Amino acid sequence: MMQAMSGIEWDAAQLAAWSEPRLARCEQALSRWVGVNAPVLLGDAMRYAVLDGGKRLRPLLVLAASEAVDGHDEAALRAACAAELIHAYSLVHDDLPCMDNDVLRRGKPTVHVQYGEADALLAGDALQALAFELLTPDDAGIAPVVQARLCRLLARAAGSEGMAGGQAIDLASVGRVLDEASLRQMHRLKTGALLQGSVEMGAGCAEQVPADVLAALRDYGAALGLAFQVVDDILDVTADSQTLGKTAGKDAASDKPTYVSLLGLDGARAEATRLLGDALAALDRCPLTDTAALRALARMVVERDR
Amino acid sequence: MMQAMSGIEWDAAQLAAWSEPRLARCEQALSRWVGVNAPVLLGDAMRYAVLDGGKRLRPLLVLAASEAVDGHDEAALRAACAAELIHAYSLVHDDLPCMDNDVLRRGKPTVHVQYGEADALLAGDALQALAFELLTPDDAGIAPVVQARLCRLLARAAGSEGMAGGQAIDLASVGRVLDEASLRQMHRLKTGALLQGSVEMGAGCAEQVPADVLAALRDYGAALGLAFQVVDDILDVTADSQTLGKTAGKDAASDKPTYVSLLGLDGARAEATRLLGDALAALDRCPLTDTAALRALARMVVERDR
Repeated sequence: MMQAMSGIEWDAAQLAAWSEPRLARCEQALSRWVGVNAPVLLGDAMRYAVLDGGKRLRPLLVLAASEAVDGHDEAALRAACAAELIHAYSLVHDDLPCMDNDVLRRGKPTVHVQYGEADALLAGDALQALAFELLTPDDAGIAPVVQARLCRLLARAAGSEGMAGGQAIDLASVGRVLDEASLRQMHRLKTGALLQGSVEMGAGCAEQVPADVLAALRDYGAALGLAFQVVDDILDVTADSQTLGKTAGKDAASDKPTYVSLLGLDGARAEATRLLGDALAALDRCPLTDTAALRALARMVVERDR
Repeated sequence: MMQAMSGIEWDAAQLAAWSEPRLARCEQALSRWVGVNAPVLLGDAMRYAVLDGGKRLRPLLVLAASEAVDGHDEAALRAACAAELIHAYSLVHDDLPCMDNDVLRRGKPTVHVQYGEADALLAGDALQALAFELLTPDDAGIAPVVQARLCRLLARAAGSEGMAGGQAIDLASVGRVLDEASLRQMHRLKTGALLQGSVEMGAGCAEQVPADVLAALRDYGAALGLAFQVVDDILDVTADSQTLGKTAGKDAASDKPTYVSLLGLDGARAEATRLLGDALAALDRCPLTDTAALRALARMVVERDR
């Protein structure tokens, strides 16, 4: 397997040096696996939705967590891609006219603008199925117990008590005032579940992981997941569409409750910093020697500008 | 586990006596598992889509195949429900305005008519995730190798080289003339993959299954899957909406290629009879003693009137 570099706190160059070969490997794997044997238009839509775009934060979290526990290399690559497929399908469906009706994503027309609504719907559906197919190869030397565990974690993170549930709460909340606990619960599911699930899947790539390691990584993932959403809400207000690669200001325009509307811009920034502290503190409690990549990813989530 | 009854060719009463307790068990399990801890509207939409309706053919195929190979009982129940969830989600998405735009299903308003398009979309997404979650419990005593295999079979049956791929071909075929080979390929994916996958999942509920048994059951499932669609095409022409519980005549109205448009009504009936023969012949090659339920289900598929 790839070796994680040593060091306690990385600077941006160190994180980039760690990330780049791993991102390249994920891109190659996604290109090899997504939509290749599908009917032609469907396969094109699937590839358009997934390839050549996105920060790939979920894959990096999977790989960093797996390396921290010395997980199975091929399992981690597959889990990294599977988490990204779930993320990608959720964006395709989220952008549809009956949901957010968005036309711009990662600086390109959204999938339904490019391929039509019906093929966008099916591409999303097929990407979700493909995620579970990637996790269960019959010839990759991955222990069945790891395969089953990865499917379990991903299904829970994606489903009605995870991402899809959070989106349903989000839908129901438009135009309503949420208190902080409700807002937190919505985001814990909508964005947090898959980010936390990515960390847990990475940890699950080792056949056996001590319970205290799992608990610490779960806490790290939960704090990082919320921090990500707080920062998303901040960027929706402070960044422009070109930098974001998607429509800025749309939360306010659609009267959605956000951390900024609840806490104000300064309050939201303080919350993001606090959550970063929680994530790093969880790693400090973790009896692992090599959490530098996880620490750097948490900082990147909070300090990013898009 | 439940014992399959003996006998070579069952009549309708024998099939009913076998089916009824199994259907009741599936209904109870689905009611216990679907949408229970989901956000309230989403959970309601999921339950509306799944409970109290449908022939439950896929669950019965899973259970019959599992009993034929003496599969793990709880694994079979979960696989039966998982196959039904994939079927149910595909109907919810298929009925959406951007696909078939259908308002009637199983004699009730479709999910998006009842709950709105956005919640219907999310309910379908969450049902797909739930299918994989049901297959991977961490406390049900199901061997990880069985859990992983069931996920693999279901993911392949549901995805871009299975059901979703078939729906994409179907979409692209509206208004075009398909030859028999193309029509067969479309239906092999659109309807056949999940029906065949249900049989294979049932067979996969045993930890070890001889290759010749698997091959025979796969052939049985493939023939049955195509036969189902041929009969669907016939019923679309010959039955009325009330009997079907969905809009009759919609294939012709939407200018979709069908077996009836290709072969004529008599030709399609002959094709269904031929495929039933193929399914039964596959079982005759199968070194299993107890295939009575599978035989009776194949007959039911071809002789049904809705």
